[in-house]
Amino acid sequence: MRIAVLGVGLIGGSIGMAARARLSADVTGFDPDRAILERAVELGALDSGGASVEDAARGAEIVFCAAPVRALPELVSRALAATDADAVVTDVGSTKRGLMESITGIAGSERFIGGHPLAGAETAGVENARAELFDGARWYLTPTERSSGLHYDRLQRAVGALGARPQAIEPGVHDRVMATISHVPHVIANVLATQARQALAEENDRPPEVGPSFRDTTRVAGANPAIWGDIFTANAEAVAREIDAVVERLEAAARIIRAADADAVDAWHREALEARRTLLDADVAGGELRELRVVVENRPGAVAEIALALGHAGVNIEDMGLYPAADMRTGAMSLWVAGPAQAERAVGVIRELGHSASVVGEAP
Amino acid sequence: MRIAVLGVGLIGGSIGMAARARLSADVTGFDPDRAILERAVELGALDSGGASVEDAARGAEIVFCAAPVRALPELVSRALAATDADAVVTDVGSTKRGLMESITGIAGSERFIGGHPLAGAETAGVENARAELFDGARWYLTPTERSSGLHYDRLQRAVGALGARPQAIEPGVHDRVMATISHVPHVIANVLATQARQALAEENDRPPEVGPSFRDTTRVAGANPAIWGDIFTANAEAVAREIDAVVERLEAAARIIRAADADAVDAWHREALEARRTLLDADVAGGELRELRVVVENRPGAVAEIALALGHAGVNIEDMGLYPAADMRTGAMSLWVAGPAQAERAVGVIRELGHSASVVGEAP
Repeated sequence: MRIAVLGVGLIGGSIGMAARARLSADVTGFDPDRAILERAVELGALDSGGASVEDAARGAEIVFCAAPVRALPELVSRALAATDADAVVTDVGSTKRGLMESITGIAGSERFIGGHPLAGAETAGVENARAELFDGARWYLTPTERSSGLHYDRLQRAVGALGARPQAIEPGVHDRVMATISHVPHVIANVLATQARQALAEENDRPPEVGPSFRDTTRVAGANPAIWGDIFTANAEAVAREIDAVVERLEAAARIIRAADADAVDAWHREALEARRTLLDADVAGGELRELRVVVENRPGAVAEIALALGHAGVNIEDMGLYPAADMRTGAMSLWVAGPAQAERAVGVIRELGHSASVVGEAP
Repeated sequence: MRIAVLGVGLIGGSIGMAARARLSADVTGFDPDRAILERAVELGALDSGGASVEDAARGAEIVFCAAPVRALPELVSRALAATDADAVVTDVGSTKRGLMESITGIAGSERFIGGHPLAGAETAGVENARAELFDGARWYLTPTERSSGLHYDRLQRAVGALGARPQAIEPGVHDRVMATISHVPHVIANVLATQARQALAEENDRPPEVGPSFRDTTRVAGANPAIWGDIFTANAEAVAREIDAVVERLEAAARIIRAADADAVDAWHREALEARRTLLDADVAGGELRELRVVVENRPGAVAEIALALGHAGVNIEDMGLYPAADMRTGAMSLWVAGPAQAERAVGVIRELGHSASVVGEAP
């Protein structure tokens, strides 16, 4: 099988590596940065680098366009023009509706099926590329009524062979889901960080220490500016609509808090607990997530000791948060594990190490 | 020195332990739950339990009222009535303005100085109490123009001896700072979790996997309902005003995103990065925080291996986030360490273990 990868950053490079290793594909690539293209060949992400988009795409059965979102419309057009009627062209951009609309009507557009793997958002660059990047990851595909079954089948088989779990989705639904689970959390983190800096500057000469909840809630503030500006604007409508919905809920929260209506506040608060659990449980095979709170010394090695002991006991950590005390010498740690049996085992292991541990929501 | 602790949960119990160990104080206590009072004596948090609030408070030089926020006005009054002109009475509630106002004018109110230690929010119960809980923690105190220097001095010395760092603050400023760094992040997490559940239910039969940004941003959603309902309503005005400010910023964000104004979005996004850095740097002694991204296998023990190696190399982890891939077999990890020297050392250590690691914002 011949595969072309246009743009060899983390995603493009990983597609190349996985395609070579698992599909025994012959992978050609192109990148506007010549040094990156050469490095991709060196690292084994590509069999060879082409002299141009057209040179790399020609003859491929599948073309993956892995460029930044704003560069995709032109890149996809050129890939379609350079390939014959048999080839399927796809992309890996994080928004889908705008791209699908901009492709509609151009020559060969029935051979374009949008794609979006949910993987690799945390790092960038071909240096970090690896064949395993997509293992188990959701990979959304946006076929249209004009897509041929042959093209769709070939693409979704290839995506599966790369290790991912393909799922067809309407472009608009995709964009709203992404706005909800990823883009708006980033917006919120940005707004909260900026607002806090201003509010605190008004009250203090030197900003006070921030708490663990602030750390968690703003962790992604300002993440990777090179790609996030693009994502917000490419998914502008869905993101803005979702912000509107969050604003409405915040206004409702301000009303019941201002009214100091204890019952309403309590019901609202408990609803949030339930909502987060529902959404996180969907991710985990081993049963409902349980949260453990552990008090630890914040010395180098303390986290290691616990993680290692849990590892020996076969307990996997699904999610984790560290809450150092102000002096950085002690602190609390939250660990999420799957299901009550793992939670119980984990508490036992941690207590045996001499730390205090309990499952949140259960008597200590 | 004689100290009384009224309410022996995590905070009250830890005050008792620290006062006994570090002030050689004689600590009496009271709790409406008789079993908890007995347990506190057993655990060494108290020398003895009193038969009533008055019985425990009588003769104390400092009385710590460590009951839930809504119970404080009555408890403080009773403590003032039971003690003589020499005794100072304080509390540990997480909001201050309402309490200070409700105390004003009652007999002995000039002997009341409000307090709030920033510690222990993550766990609860006397079982988790420990003498070290306040080590290095900020402990806000709210003296008024009527507070005697003698009382204030005695209280702030005692708080320092318990291990904390006392700081005087106006009650209104305190409440706004807490709204900003803690209460509103909790409100945001609640709103985001609830909104996401609804939005996703409209689009899918089964909710899709949520991303790491959603996990971080909603981590405190629905936290500890027993205390949070109280906190929101006790600090209603400051929280609601801060929500209003966040709403304004969200509306502004929606406007520039809707306009797809790439430059404005970029500037707004970068401002957030800068804001979070400014606020987090205030916490850390060793220099500006650096974020490392590491790609790891998500097997039991992988985190341990890295944390242990960093520990051996003398690198302390200030904050941490795990971003498991969908299959839970691989994932990325963010580590925050203090200063460029630690960051460089950490990258070296992690790469030697065979993982891919880079400092965010630097070329790999």
